[in-house]
Amino acid sequence: MNPRTLHKITYGMYIICSKKDDSYNGQIANAVIQVTAEPRTIAIAVNRDNLTHEYILQSGVFTVSVMDIDCDMKLIGKFGFKSGRNIDKFEGIDYKIGQTGVPIVLNHALAFIEAKVIDKIDIHTHTIFFGEVVDAEILNEDDVMTYSYYHLVKGGKSPKNAPTYIAEQTLKEQPRKEVNLKKYECNVCGYIYDPAVGDEESGIPAGTLFEDLPDDWVCPVCGAGKEEFSLFH
Amino acid sequence: MNPRTLHKITYGMYIICSKKDDSYNGQIANAVIQVTAEPRTIAIAVNRDNLTHEYILQSGVFTVSVMDIDCDMKLIGKFGFKSGRNIDKFEGIDYKIGQTGVPIVLNHALAFIEAKVIDKIDIHTHTIFFGEVVDAEILNEDDVMTYSYYHLVKGGKSPKNAPTYIAEQTLKEQPRKEVNLKKYECNVCGYIYDPAVGDEESGIPAGTLFEDLPDDWVCPVCGAGKEEFSLFH
Repeated sequence: MNPRTLHKITYGMYIICSKKDDSYNGQIANAVIQVTAEPRTIAIAVNRDNLTHEYILQSGVFTVSVMDIDCDMKLIGKFGFKSGRNIDKFEGIDYKIGQTGVPIVLNHALAFIEAKVIDKIDIHTHTIFFGEVVDAEILNEDDVMTYSYYHLVKGGKSPKNAPTYIAEQTLKEQPRKEVNLKKYECNVCGYIYDPAVGDEESGIPAGTLFEDLPDDWVCPVCGAGKEEFSLFH
Repeated sequence: MNPRTLHKITYGMYIICSKKDDSYNGQIANAVIQVTAEPRTIAIAVNRDNLTHEYILQSGVFTVSVMDIDCDMKLIGKFGFKSGRNIDKFEGIDYKIGQTGVPIVLNHALAFIEAKVIDKIDIHTHTIFFGEVVDAEILNEDDVMTYSYYHLVKGGKSPKNAPTYIAEQTLKEQPRKEVNLKKYECNVCGYIYDPAVGDEESGIPAGTLFEDLPDDWVCPVCGAGKEEFSLFH
């Protein structure tokens, strides 16, 4: 069994939002599919530890924003690696309230879907929510951000609560390419700073050693400071 | 509500196989996701009218072959638009029998997953099967065939039993581009022969009018003869 095989399943990248009373929360998801055409029903898989899970359970409604290919790592980091228990994820975010009363994230969204939960099933760590589509619109015809693009081009990682997470120990059993420059890994989200690549979004050119990063540089995925990084072996 | 919105959800293309006693069957699917990482569990959505549905129910095991980007329309047509009730889909197909006793299609497969059903839920026309992964291997590092590539580049359609199917009537309500050459539509599977494009896989160059196609030309998706085509309006 090769644990990387399941990464050959193709996904997009989505921000799923829900509400609880007057509070809003949202999270990154990749496990979104349409399951029936008539009536239109979609399924999403959400980790039971996530705050968004609690909100969907309580309100029975959720929205899905489809991310475009230019979606930046800071947006993904905010919704994918931070918890709404600690921060207000909607601060500084462009969103509107949909028919369901749930926010729809508009930053880098090329389409959105609103759904009302009609059924659910618990599978180990996750709940799969089935939602009848109550509204769905295309906002523009940009290319979608695929999950493989996020991993390969943007250097993104899966958070521990994601269906696709593979423990680092498992990955290290697989052969890796030799590297000459020292890489550093974020202890919070697993992002790897590679000096050969730099961090273009933060204005760090390729060739910049980790030691030479400015003191106020933060992880482009989750916002952790340099002190949260350790040498990547 | 724009019915095209749900086409912004990203999928791969897969052939799902199962068995019943000594019989094998398989079908095309796009709705495949990983739902948990530990243990590794995947979900697939299968129409309850499909023979593969009956087989999975009976045997409790299935395989998923991940299609590569060069996957030809004849393979997709055979597994996606024909029923195993009428033909033996495995005739002329390269496959092996996996640990589960279920065939794994190898033609244009870049990876495969074998799974044992641990739970299921019926949602309207479809059943979502949840399978614990018992084996999974990468066969090569080719690019995957995404569902949008199939639709946009290969001109593929969704069969009526697919979660993503949109009735032609609904689509026709949307604005379409003007065309100069007459297109013909397959009454069986919905494939549209466009003379401006031709049918490269069958050796028909762009610019060939439908009327000028050889008498033995068949629909590259489902194998229907020319007599099954009607003018596309």
